[in-house]
Amino acid sequence: MGNDSQARLAARYGAPQIAALKQCNATIDQLLEHRSVRAFTDQPLADGTLETLIAAAQSASTSSNLQVWSVVAMQDDERKGRLSVLAGNQAYIRQAPLFLVWLADLSRASRLGEQHGVELEALPYLESLLLGTIDAALAAQNAVVALESMGLGSVYIGGIRNDIEGVAKELDLPAQVYPVFGLCVGHPSPDRPAHVKPRLPQAAVLHHETYSAAAEQDVIAEYDERLGAFYHREGMKAGGWSEQVVSRLREVSSLHGREALLGELKRMGFGLR
Amino acid sequence: MGNDSQARLAARYGAPQIAALKQCNATIDQLLEHRSVRAFTDQPLADGTLETLIAAAQSASTSSNLQVWSVVAMQDDERKGRLSVLAGNQAYIRQAPLFLVWLADLSRASRLGEQHGVELEALPYLESLLLGTIDAALAAQNAVVALESMGLGSVYIGGIRNDIEGVAKELDLPAQVYPVFGLCVGHPSPDRPAHVKPRLPQAAVLHHETYSAAAEQDVIAEYDERLGAFYHREGMKAGGWSEQVVSRLREVSSLHGREALLGELKRMGFGLR
Repeated sequence: MGNDSQARLAARYGAPQIAALKQCNATIDQLLEHRSVRAFTDQPLADGTLETLIAAAQSASTSSNLQVWSVVAMQDDERKGRLSVLAGNQAYIRQAPLFLVWLADLSRASRLGEQHGVELEALPYLESLLLGTIDAALAAQNAVVALESMGLGSVYIGGIRNDIEGVAKELDLPAQVYPVFGLCVGHPSPDRPAHVKPRLPQAAVLHHETYSAAAEQDVIAEYDERLGAFYHREGMKAGGWSEQVVSRLREVSSLHGREALLGELKRMGFGLR
Repeated sequence: MGNDSQARLAARYGAPQIAALKQCNATIDQLLEHRSVRAFTDQPLADGTLETLIAAAQSASTSSNLQVWSVVAMQDDERKGRLSVLAGNQAYIRQAPLFLVWLADLSRASRLGEQHGVELEALPYLESLLLGTIDAALAAQNAVVALESMGLGSVYIGGIRNDIEGVAKELDLPAQVYPVFGLCVGHPSPDRPAHVKPRLPQAAVLHHETYSAAAEQDVIAEYDERLGAFYHREGMKAGGWSEQVVSRLREVSSLHGREALLGELKRMGFGLR
């Protein structure tokens, strides 16, 4: 492994002295270099880009090949503008040439049941919500890997869940479909380059054989420092990670409407037993 | 794009005459070639493989950098054997040299709240379950891309959700952590090569601007034929996709215990409001 791989890993963990990975290659280098892009040029996407991203997405695993996900691709500026408002006024939704809304979609299976005159008794359970959510996430992540390999950038928009009924109305979603998250796609703006954000040391997330949080406090203290140093380099005033997590989750108001998800999903036809 | 790319796409959709993608590269070719591997050689993984997979996983996006996921890596044969039983007797869990259980993990945030003497009021909502589930799925899919780039194979194990309390006991999971799925990792056995399974035509999952199922029936009829032809080539007796979906979802018994997820998650400390 060359110095470049070590530098990528050092940025990923905010740890300049970290030992290089023993196993690495160009694909893994690309994964390590991921950063969320929130500023795009107005360059349109090359012809055929969307079809490539969808082929990559569909190549991801799907539970029992049920394929309980769909995606809506938006390029219309006015619609992107309305979605941007629904998702908490995130300007880059409007700016990105392509906005993808990834859906957990049980409606396709439901329609098949109706056509066959069969009631799908296994559908109205929380398990189905998870199936669709996981299918959509695996698919979307493959699309992200594909678009980054093409020199494009993206950012996930969880704010789409702030008002899933509003989004469903805008996208004309049938019952038993919910928007899991959005994804802005475009050419990264060179004027506002995004940087790799350091993650927790592996020791905090990786457990061997069984779960153990025994060494966690020291590991997180180390990360608090590393992330603080990263924000300092970025010219941002921000505390350590621990503070951020606590301040993000201490009040229901930070959910921006997502505290109502359960009721909304039920009204949208999810059984959730 | 060469003929190889066209052949990969043809296999992905079970459509020999499909037009080649206009945008493609080696990374996308790898994504298109994904197949689930259920037979492994007894060759151990190269030194450092696990650390590389975790670095790739941690490089995936995570909502607000909360990192509400963890993973347990299992190499112990007896433990893998017990997990295999819990997940519905899937022999490849035992056979794979590495078995990863991906966790939605709200407990780390909870411990931080306790240390700061702050109640995290935004935590006991369904939204948190989705956060952790999505974070875990994005991370795992990055690991899958990384391992395939290294010539390894894998298969997701949703059967881990058949008995999440049993798995939690085996892995010593704290409250507010649940196993989302497993992942078997190893060297694919050349004796039982896995093939690319055709997916739905893009027209079935990709919607433009708004959702529309208008042309769906014809598209699915086409896919029923293509998937039937695939199973025929594989020497398997299986109907079309529609039949499979309906037969998989018609009875609660096909959930193999996952119909109890809601109650189990509540007992495991998830608020789910």
